[in-house]
Amino acid sequence: GIALNTLVEPNPACSTGGGRVCRHPLTNEAENKRLLEHEQTIKGSFDAIVKVLKRIAGLQHEADFTERAQVIAREQLGFELPARILDDAWIADLDMRALYGECVMQTLRQKAEQAQLKNPQKDTDAAIAFFLDSGYHAVDISPCSDGRLKGLVRYILRLPEGAVRSRKAYAGAMFDVDANVKRWIETELMRFREGRPVTADAGTRYLKVAVYHWSSSDPTHEGCAAHCSNVTVAAEAGLKRLNAFRQAIENSFCCGASVDTLLIGVDTDTDAIKVHIPDAAGEMNLHRFVDNIELYRSTVNDDANTARLKVYQAIQAASEATGWGASSGEPHEGMRRLITSLLINNLSQIEYVCSNWGGRYTDIGHAERFISVGDGFEEFQLRNLAYFAHLHTVEEGAPDMDVGIKIFTKLNVNHGLPAPVAIHFRYDNRVPGCRERTVERCQRVKEAIEARYADLAKKGLLVCGMTVQDKRPGSPIELVEVDAA
Amino acid sequence: GIALNTLVEPNPACSTGGGRVCRHPLTNEAENKRLLEHEQTIKGSFDAIVKVLKRIAGLQHEADFTERAQVIAREQLGFELPARILDDAWIADLDMRALYGECVMQTLRQKAEQAQLKNPQKDTDAAIAFFLDSGYHAVDISPCSDGRLKGLVRYILRLPEGAVRSRKAYAGAMFDVDANVKRWIETELMRFREGRPVTADAGTRYLKVAVYHWSSSDPTHEGCAAHCSNVTVAAEAGLKRLNAFRQAIENSFCCGASVDTLLIGVDTDTDAIKVHIPDAAGEMNLHRFVDNIELYRSTVNDDANTARLKVYQAIQAASEATGWGASSGEPHEGMRRLITSLLINNLSQIEYVCSNWGGRYTDIGHAERFISVGDGFEEFQLRNLAYFAHLHTVEEGAPDMDVGIKIFTKLNVNHGLPAPVAIHFRYDNRVPGCRERTVERCQRVKEAIEARYADLAKKGLLVCGMTVQDKRPGSPIELVEVDAA
Ligand SMILES: [Zn+2]
Ligand SMILES: [Zn+2]
Ligand SMILES: [Zn+2]
Ligand SMILES: [Zn+2]
Repeated sequence: GIALNTLVEPNPACSTGGGRVCRHPLTNEAENKRLLEHEQTIKGSFDAIVKVLKRIAGLQHEADFTERAQVIAREQLGFELPARILDDAWIADLDMRALYGECVMQTLRQKAEQAQLKNPQKDTDAAIAFFLDSGYHAVDISPCSDGRLKGLVRYILRLPEGAVRSRKAYAGAMFDVDANVKRWIETELMRFREGRPVTADAGTRYLKVAVYHWSSSDPTHEGCAAHCSNVTVAAEAGLKRLNAFRQAIENSFCCGASVDTLLIGVDTDTDAIKVHIPDAAGEMNLHRFVDNIELYRSTVNDDANTARLKVYQAIQAASEATGWGASSGEPHEGMRRLITSLLINNLSQIEYVCSNWGGRYTDIGHAERFISVGDGFEEFQLRNLAYFAHLHTVEEGAPDMDVGIKIFTKLNVNHGLPAPVAIHFRYDNRVPGCRERTVERCQRVKEAIEARYADLAKKGLLVCGMTVQDKRPGSPIELVEVDAA
Repeated sequence: GIALNTLVEPNPACSTGGGRVCRHPLTNEAENKRLLEHEQTIKGSFDAIVKVLKRIAGLQHEADFTERAQVIAREQLGFELPARILDDAWIADLDMRALYGECVMQTLRQKAEQAQLKNPQKDTDAAIAFFLDSGYHAVDISPCSDGRLKGLVRYILRLPEGAVRSRKAYAGAMFDVDANVKRWIETELMRFREGRPVTADAGTRYLKVAVYHWSSSDPTHEGCAAHCSNVTVAAEAGLKRLNAFRQAIENSFCCGASVDTLLIGVDTDTDAIKVHIPDAAGEMNLHRFVDNIELYRSTVNDDANTARLKVYQAIQAASEATGWGASSGEPHEGMRRLITSLLINNLSQIEYVCSNWGGRYTDIGHAERFISVGDGFEEFQLRNLAYFAHLHTVEEGAPDMDVGIKIFTKLNVNHGLPAPVAIHFRYDNRVPGCRERTVERCQRVKEAIEARYADLAKKGLLVCGMTVQDKRPGSPIELVEVDAA
């Protein structure tokens, strides 16, 4: 039930191409193919649900209904439907809302399991090495919780899995400074106490990235809802929060404690990034940036070496800007190297959107399949798959939840389908009792969500699933039963 | 409206005395006098409220009511009453519930300010030295949130102000292991990174103490409500949580990371403590302890040196116990020294209760004056002054809040008086925006409390006050206005 934008504008990166397929010398085609297959498989599974349920609904008054429905479900969805719902169909009509909710949760767990089988042992060392190469021992990214940024790490920035220490999303990228200071403290202790990933005297840095977004084809409607689709407000707010975090570290700890910060913007129509270049003092500015879509266009017909050189030159040119974008000098070498990697990585994603969606996404607006609440699934890093509300309690996270419910009122509820809410929290199995407390948290958050949106819940238009997972990468996702305690 | 226990049993410590005033050679009489004056001043201020309001109520239909009421309030309470409430008295009857709530909150802020003036610059160095002397760089105490333990640090254990890094109270002393691991991490980083309070190579330890309680004269009714007044269950639960915390640290960090733990019980009728003696491996046992009331009795007639020797011997005897209390050897020297200090300190408190209340407290049950929610006031460390619910959200802290409301339903609501709830959170002014976020937390928690106990709130039987305070010791308490945002 998603209205497609029928007037898809061409991707500005390809405007010179005239129907020709783009081929940038620095893009990774093999990876683009792999990622497309992954995206289509996962989204296809979610999108199959409505089709299958429609078919099953047509059979509900036939004699061998339960058996026939299960055959279809097994074949088309890969799992069985809950017998208790099917068996009641002869009395009242089939409870399609409950069935839809169950199918979304089942698909989610099934796809997450399959994603894990494909990456049984992630190469964490390689991931850490990627950032250490630029002098960073930890990188922490806070994007907006908007579902269109859900592919940020794996697709838009093409970062190796496990490389990012934290990627908690907040509405409008307004991350929690106090919680972030605590995360910084933990990272620091590992370095000082245990020499992980490198010892404290190695001179490496901690990097905090905030990611805002806008829509280039419908800037006043499809930008960041948390900032009223005003890209300047969104960028300024992100920058202000980054500065507050750095200030907090510098004020609270002595011995020159500080962090590097980086502000990145994403055009959610094309997935092209805009990187705000810090100056020699680490300060950023809304007027000093490299726009990667320009870079793509100006390098698409070059050979690899020339293209690579132009990426370095673009960073240098930004640093030498005068006027409003003027800087106190170039960023340090590690930062320059990191920005170069990010820009080059993102060229592949620009081409991915180009070649697969003819310039820009057809679903430029919201088209999420579920609301992800809590710690989020690291198995799913896909655009528009989920609206992600990172929260520990609904009491604190209510504004983020409200935005999610508003989105799903348009996407699902107005069409008679429930909003599927996947509550997922990670636990630390090295801490006694932590799993039990995490299961309790799932249940507490579920109750709070059902209380806050009681009208929807009463009508069956809100379906919550609960899962927990150990913190170690690759741990299985464990289902929490509703009546477990 | 507090029913006094008319059948006060004698303090077992004095049973040999026969009317004679107890004088233990190791008690600090000057401190006992100072503490009594402090307790009487503060409690007297709270207890004056009802008397003054009764007097004012009798005048409410006289012509010059507002002026006369203010004169009485200024004289008897030390502050003016809110004019908006007095001015409306000629229309409807005086809103005694609102007036009572305002008076409790005013008294609270006034007394906190006075407490600060008396200790303008606390000697933090001396406080830290007290524990460093036993080899501890940080001591973290979690008592039960029961108001009868509110005097734990300053009265029962006689610890210098500022010596204890954290004293967050939880119902049944069931402290949050995960939050405690985070606190340990912060402490460790300070040591490793900044050498505070001592450098990491100094070989000092982190000590976590849990404090449970019971009532010796009415053990089955006036014990710990969170453990159904079962002292064995309360002690076992505390021990289990301590072991879980140590396990969490040992499992999560390498290089021999560990913590010392100590379990202490308090008889809330006499304030006498029971210290469970760790063995050489740091393990404790419910059957191996030193009961300080026995120690008081067996040393009250000795000279100071003999008494002190008997304290050491009592610890040694416990360590050499056989049977259920058998140990793997004595605790390390620092722990022995610490336990000795705690036992000797507590002798003064046993005598304090003895000499001022004839053996044991007359208010052996609940007689709290307000519910303290959030971070609590370090200015008030007085028995039965407040029921303390340490929480960040009502969603998580609901069980603790419910116990508090239950207590105040008996104490106040059933007599027509509102339950006064003082919401207080500390902020870190070194972190930009932290104060604003803390004010928002106050308001969020207030709304959540009023929503949870909507019936009471509607009837004016729940009055919330909000204050914030910077984290640095001695910072002023700042009032948060209801309509501030
Ligand atoms: Zn957004
Ligand atoms: Zn193209
Ligand atoms: Zn006595
Ligand atoms: Zn208790």
